Amino acid sequence: MSDKKKTTIVLFSGDYDKAMAAYIIANGAAAYDHEVTIFHTFWGLNALRKENQIPLKKGFLEKMFGKMMPRGADKMGLSKMNYLGMGPKMIKHVMKKHNAMTLPQLVEMAQEQNVKMIACTMTMDLLGLQQEELLDGIDYAGVAAYIGDAEQGNVNLFI
Amino acid sequence: MSDKKKTTIVLFSGDYDKAMAAYIIANGAAAYDHEVTIFHTFWGLNALRKENQIPLKKGFLEKMFGKMMPRGADKMGLSKMNYLGMGPKMIKHVMKKHNAMTLPQLVEMAQEQNVKMIACTMTMDLLGLQQEELLDGIDYAGVAAYIGDAEQGNVNLFI
Amino acid sequence: MSDKKKTTIVLFSGDYDKAMAAYIIANGAAAYDHEVTIFHTFWGLNALRKENQIPLKKGFLEKMFGKMMPRGADKMGLSKMNYLGMGPKMIKHVMKKHNAMTLPQLVEMAQEQNVKMIACTMTMDLLGLQQEELLDGIDYAGVAAYIGDAEQGNVNLFI
Repeated sequence: MSDKKKTTIVLFSGDYDKAMAAYIIANGAAAYDHEVTIFHTFWGLNALRKENQIPLKKGFLEKMFGKMMPRGADKMGLSKMNYLGMGPKMIKHVMKKHNAMTLPQLVEMAQEQNVKMIACTMTMDLLGLQQEELLDGIDYAGVAAYIGDAEQGNVNLFI
Repeated sequence: MSDKKKTTIVLFSGDYDKAMAAYIIANGAAAYDHEVTIFHTFWGLNALRKENQIPLKKGFLEKMFGKMMPRGADKMGLSKMNYLGMGPKMIKHVMKKHNAMTLPQLVEMAQEQNVKMIACTMTMDLLGLQQEELLDGIDYAGVAAYIGDAEQGNVNLFI
Repeated sequence: MSDKKKTTIVLFSGDYDKAMAAYIIANGAAAYDHEVTIFHTFWGLNALRKENQIPLKKGFLEKMFGKMMPRGADKMGLSKMNYLGMGPKMIKHVMKKHNAMTLPQLVEMAQEQNVKMIACTMTMDLLGLQQEELLDGIDYAGVAAYIGDAEQGNVNLFI
């Protein structure tokens, strides 16, 4: 166990704004020299999906989930004022104006800063997601790994 | 105060998937020998409701809330892709296929593992819920008890 | 760095019930002598808006956001059972009956108890909110200040 401070985030949400908050905190903590882990579970896994469709054998329900869920960080909706996709367009417009980083850029930055990115294998099974569909450089683990990381630090968030 | 690690979760959400995440983390932490508390407040209280209706004297608004809220863990909806109840059916179908535990089973397991389950008395009053309607073996307390538990540990989550 | 216990809450949500939970925990922790910070970001900033409209120069999108978002704690909706505003009315009715504090009263109490209230400057820019529109006595800061507060304590919540 190292002496470094630890920040461990469960990213459960599949909303663009909540994922932005998670990745801004993660990148901030990494910049202040924390060891940072983001444990992606349920809808939060969508932030790790590749944009292009990967041809894979899947059952019917798994195919349905795959089609209904956003493919990658850029496609996610807002938790508030989504208005059938208008909200995300407005937010992205003002983000551009203020030179704020987009969610895909924040995810990339987290990888560059060595934020440990874990995909929850149990919920991947439930939602029919396979490793080939997710970004490269991701770790795969379950709740035991999460507890192991979380119990060593004090900044623990569920987003 | 014991030397055991502590995990304290506020379960505010009444969504099936979020409650699942809360109970999976709680059961995982208990398996790794943490002292675990789940403090159920607002819509999270619904996870503790008995399935059958208990005849009780209630005011009009309390009756309305009682009817509109899901009666027990099995009746809760999803935070995403609920689609008027289709989503929960799909999720439960894939859960069965993967031998994943259902939410009622996770709640039962938590009780067997001595996870301390608290119902927030202030929000019970607001939503008109009475002790007779909730599962047996629950503790009843307020925010002071929550602070007391949370300040002794480092894994603190709001779900 | 003081020896006091610390509670640091990120209030991301713009829902009346979630903000109530955040402020009840904050006030409870302050009563038990914690140093408490609430870091308001994204929709959580709405809890800090003044009720009356402040005439300010804004761009088109900033005006739109300003109009669409609730002006102050009292105007916020519920995360569940909002029913076009019926839910908040019902909740406020039972709160009155049980002498529970309203959200604006909880915010006022937090200020009296010296809870540090921070508005996230980055998301203020995105949503076009200006300091003149927010309550007096607020601090203004970014993610670095949040990390600085959070890493010194163990009760860290994202709401």
